[in-house]
Amino acid sequence: MQGDPEVAVLRLGHRPGRDERITTHVGLTARALGADRVILAGDGASRADTVEDITDRFGGPFAVDTVDSWRPTLRDWDGAVVHLTMYGEEVQTVESEIREAHRERRDPLLVVVGAEKVPFDVYETADWNVGVTNQPHSEIASLAVFLDRLFEGRELDREFEDAEKVVVPQAVGKRVVDAGDE
Amino acid sequence: MQGDPEVAVLRLGHRPGRDERITTHVGLTARALGADRVILAGDGASRADTVEDITDRFGGPFAVDTVDSWRPTLRDWDGAVVHLTMYGEEVQTVESEIREAHRERRDPLLVVVGAEKVPFDVYETADWNVGVTNQPHSEIASLAVFLDRLFEGRELDREFEDAEKVVVPQAVGKRVVDAGDE
Repeated sequence: MQGDPEVAVLRLGHRPGRDERITTHVGLTARALGADRVILAGDGASRADTVEDITDRFGGPFAVDTVDSWRPTLRDWDGAVVHLTMYGEEVQTVESEIREAHRERRDPLLVVVGAEKVPFDVYETADWNVGVTNQPHSEIASLAVFLDRLFEGRELDREFEDAEKVVVPQAVGKRVVDAGDE
Repeated sequence: MQGDPEVAVLRLGHRPGRDERITTHVGLTARALGADRVILAGDGASRADTVEDITDRFGGPFAVDTVDSWRPTLRDWDGAVVHLTMYGEEVQTVESEIREAHRERRDPLLVVVGAEKVPFDVYETADWNVGVTNQPHSEIASLAVFLDRLFEGRELDREFEDAEKVVVPQAVGKRVVDAGDE
């Protein structure tokens, strides 16, 4: 998010034919809730266009990168790494440490989001393995709660630049205007 | 959640062949993040078994209901209705009002989560149309952030009853024990 050190989301483990919409939602959630970039590894790269299309229409900055393999991204990351997993430490316990590393030490942060069966070296490489509950649910939900807590809600007021369309909040109904006409 | 008035999540608009995993994630997110029940309307009913299976293994209480049509559920709901939509009022603006209705007036709360193209009567029937940002992203992400804010994080400490398996938070690795062996 503008003014913060970089937050990138690395999506790994995408399974073709199963995870299309899940990976799309991971990318769109990263964009909407304050991350600067999503990195789609392996077959997840197929979802790049859909996420880029939303950025074209609703604004950025937000980058979509694709990589054949996630291992070099993880290994060479110059900053802190959080891996979201139901097996990890409770988010409410570690979030303040992570926020401090991010905001005070100005470390770029890589948030790793897997599908089922994440290889063990991800657990070992991560600075924090973090559970948004220790219950099985959704990598999209975990990412959303994690980002909202990382930014302490500031992401909800993020302004998007170079949008074609802007949604104007309404008590009832839908209002979408051309950017500049707000 | 135990001790709170009921929170039920109504999933509507499920499209067969597209939304299988999304609807499953909606159900599991509802369970993990403090709702008492998910109501799967129409074709979304196909996902009931998957959600119930998780409750059997990891505990409850959490109910999964299926209905042919969502309209009677919405029309006859005895309590407040929140519809999560990118066109709605900002969650950060209306959340305290909603929390107050829920906790002080003890109103049961129905949280409506659609897929694309929600019929207009949902907007009209809802007491609040709420946007977790006014950006297009994910109904799973919106539900997760909404519940975390509704319960102000208390849902992260929820204890599940009658579980077969319990995940024990770990800094590195996975630890799953039989319930009772913690």
